[in-house]
Amino acid sequence: MQRNILVIGAGKSTSYLQDYLLNKALTENIRLTIGDLNPRLIPSETRSHPACEVIKLDINIDAERETAISSADIVISMLPARFHGKVAKDCLRFNKNLVTASYISDEMLALDPKVKKKGLIFMNEIGLDPGIDHMSAMQLINNIRDKGGKLLLFESFTGGLVAPESDNNLWNYKFSWNPRNVVLAGQGGAAKFIQEGSYKYIPYQKLFRRTEFMDIKGYGVFEAYANRDSLNYREAYGLHDALTLYRGTMRRVGFSKAWNMFVQLGMTDDSYTIENSKGMSYREYTNLFLPYSPTDSVELKLRHYLKIDQDDIMWGKLLELNLFDPLKRIPIENATPAQMLQFILEDSWTMDQEDKDMIVMYHKFGYEIKGVKRQIDSNMVVIGENQIYTAMAKTVGLPVAIATLLILNKQITSPGVQIPIASEVYDPILKELAQNGIVFKEYEVPYLGYNPDSVAG
Amino acid sequence: MQRNILVIGAGKSTSYLQDYLLNKALTENIRLTIGDLNPRLIPSETRSHPACEVIKLDINIDAERETAISSADIVISMLPARFHGKVAKDCLRFNKNLVTASYISDEMLALDPKVKKKGLIFMNEIGLDPGIDHMSAMQLINNIRDKGGKLLLFESFTGGLVAPESDNNLWNYKFSWNPRNVVLAGQGGAAKFIQEGSYKYIPYQKLFRRTEFMDIKGYGVFEAYANRDSLNYREAYGLHDALTLYRGTMRRVGFSKAWNMFVQLGMTDDSYTIENSKGMSYREYTNLFLPYSPTDSVELKLRHYLKIDQDDIMWGKLLELNLFDPLKRIPIENATPAQMLQFILEDSWTMDQEDKDMIVMYHKFGYEIKGVKRQIDSNMVVIGENQIYTAMAKTVGLPVAIATLLILNKQITSPGVQIPIASEVYDPILKELAQNGIVFKEYEVPYLGYNPDSVAG
Repeated sequence: MQRNILVIGAGKSTSYLQDYLLNKALTENIRLTIGDLNPRLIPSETRSHPACEVIKLDINIDAERETAISSADIVISMLPARFHGKVAKDCLRFNKNLVTASYISDEMLALDPKVKKKGLIFMNEIGLDPGIDHMSAMQLINNIRDKGGKLLLFESFTGGLVAPESDNNLWNYKFSWNPRNVVLAGQGGAAKFIQEGSYKYIPYQKLFRRTEFMDIKGYGVFEAYANRDSLNYREAYGLHDALTLYRGTMRRVGFSKAWNMFVQLGMTDDSYTIENSKGMSYREYTNLFLPYSPTDSVELKLRHYLKIDQDDIMWGKLLELNLFDPLKRIPIENATPAQMLQFILEDSWTMDQEDKDMIVMYHKFGYEIKGVKRQIDSNMVVIGENQIYTAMAKTVGLPVAIATLLILNKQITSPGVQIPIASEVYDPILKELAQNGIVFKEYEVPYLGYNPDSVAG
Repeated sequence: MQRNILVIGAGKSTSYLQDYLLNKALTENIRLTIGDLNPRLIPSETRSHPACEVIKLDINIDAERETAISSADIVISMLPARFHGKVAKDCLRFNKNLVTASYISDEMLALDPKVKKKGLIFMNEIGLDPGIDHMSAMQLINNIRDKGGKLLLFESFTGGLVAPESDNNLWNYKFSWNPRNVVLAGQGGAAKFIQEGSYKYIPYQKLFRRTEFMDIKGYGVFEAYANRDSLNYREAYGLHDALTLYRGTMRRVGFSKAWNMFVQLGMTDDSYTIENSKGMSYREYTNLFLPYSPTDSVELKLRHYLKIDQDDIMWGKLLELNLFDPLKRIPIENATPAQMLQFILEDSWTMDQEDKDMIVMYHKFGYEIKGVKRQIDSNMVVIGENQIYTAMAKTVGLPVAIATLLILNKQITSPGVQIPIASEVYDPILKELAQNGIVFKEYEVPYLGYNPDSVAG
């Protein structure tokens, strides 16, 4: 009998997901129902595929949602995380398995006993980050453990960047994902991690000055700043004895130092609104954060304030964003500094239709085996094709699609609300990802422990 | 008939308040009832005064509170602001006037129609800051207006400091008020003000690097950092046309630059708790905020991180606080970085019993009259006698006591929930304050507008 897969949400990260499942329609005897608020936005090649049905689905209209979910064999929710609750409750009611790429919310976790009781699988955090990071890390960690090794160090870094062939600005950066998250990154509390057994804390005002560097063969040097809480997965990964736990966000070298200028000026603040933001020029915006002067230029005041030398490339980075332009204007009413900065950045950092994005992931595993300390580094690079087939859509969508098929085919069987850290989940998925060009390269390096020489600051 | 003044709360800032009223007992035919949770802590000289009755009063026990308030002729609440609501409601019910030194809360403001209807006076913000700042500013502002002048600029600064004769540390600072407020100063949002018609915003991470300087004859140079919202009193003071509005906190020059080290390290953060804070040494605490190193000292890491030269006095300031001491320990469980820093600072900055504190206030008034721009600066310095008779207790308590008598004697008559910005209030109070050594010195200076040369940053 043909199985019906319901995909709710047809947004930016679903191109590869849809194609992967439609390409398997015949061999797997499946059909795809894609439900979206605006089904017209789905490309005609997808809509006209014989195994695809497109329906209008407003998640807030109970009848529409219930009809779609009750007639599916499995449900994928690609909606923003806040909508998963309604979908999950219906899946429970109609006995449907569920797959999402989002972090498990408390609301989702609370369903676990009922989900288990019914023998259902609610698989979450199975996109890129969270997702591929969990799976690739757990596979290597469990391999080390199987050989009798004991984990001492785990560091993990991910970045959504622009591919080298489309990289043509001084920041070596364009937006490949939600720009708002990039502008607000690092806010809401100090970054917390462990280095060689010592707890360490970095406040927001120093976060972008405490970067760590890493090399990826063929792609050059990257940097990473610390994520807010590197200790989140200590429990899930079973890393209670590890002396170093560190998670970070990857950028090209020099990005963080330049970004810190915005932090120091106060431009990333999202907690208050600016009077008369609408119609304000980029230059006036910049001047909001500088002392008043009847004579000195905005340029000189900023150079002096942030101590930028005449020949410092930081200055070129600011000029490139037109921060001193008196004619370019911000059209947003009652905007926060962060919203205004986002507008200015999107003006420069939006990808062209043919621009390619790039996903990088880098793990370090330090361990001790038979009294000897060893280290394995592993990394993954995925380059997108264009702005429809992005590396982001590929790395988020393919794990979701693969997991869905595995659950449908009863190759993943453990019930419950879960994340992909069991081998029955990650082994087949990583294998299939590799077939699709999402590959980790592993190499042994000398164990350095936490290497202070690779830390700036 | 003898009038009964009820003073609820006998805390740190009530010494002068009690003495002032008791000294007037005979001439004014008043007696004082002092209600406190721990009446035994009230000095015996006060308790044994024939016009004074001391009662145990638990503000949360309705019967105790109602009995005390209903038998008073006027009520002073010197409790923390959060307790004023209950007192105010009883005052309304029993038709008693009320005086507090606290900011008007929304709860207090909501009582205004009922207070007015009953012809009662609920006088608030009549301590130092808020209090003396309102009165001294409004008197000068109204004088300028009476002469036909138009206000262009108003800047106002207050500081609670250590008197020169007790100033014996490199920070030129000791705690004369709630240390927690000092540690958390400037947090919770960007500072906002107007300079020559331009809105300006300073984020927390730059707040202590954008100080302004001011000279007080005989006392030397001070600095001030911006308060969070300088625009709060635009409405109340009628300063809609002023091009510059700036309020700040005064310190001795160099304090803010040094304090910024704590901000940059993340030591003032109150939003999360430190693992194993109890028993942690000062040195271990400092190291929490520095990168890990198997070899480098905490000292060198900090010098490098904050770029402190060998001969920079900043370094001496850190040493003086014993920040690198491996033996001194913090005894607080589950403490935030800010709580731990407060403990370390109190270890060095607590005043001895005979130490004298100092209150400084500095106003600048720029105005235009008959086409000519002029400026008046005014300042006030009050030195305490010891740790019972502090300048803080004098400047907070005396305005409260004086206002209470004026209301009791029907020399202040306008009803309502109010702050002291009407001349019937500030004129007699400022006159009586001057008799008690709380004097403003005024002098004309050339109008500079907002003078950028006096701004660091």
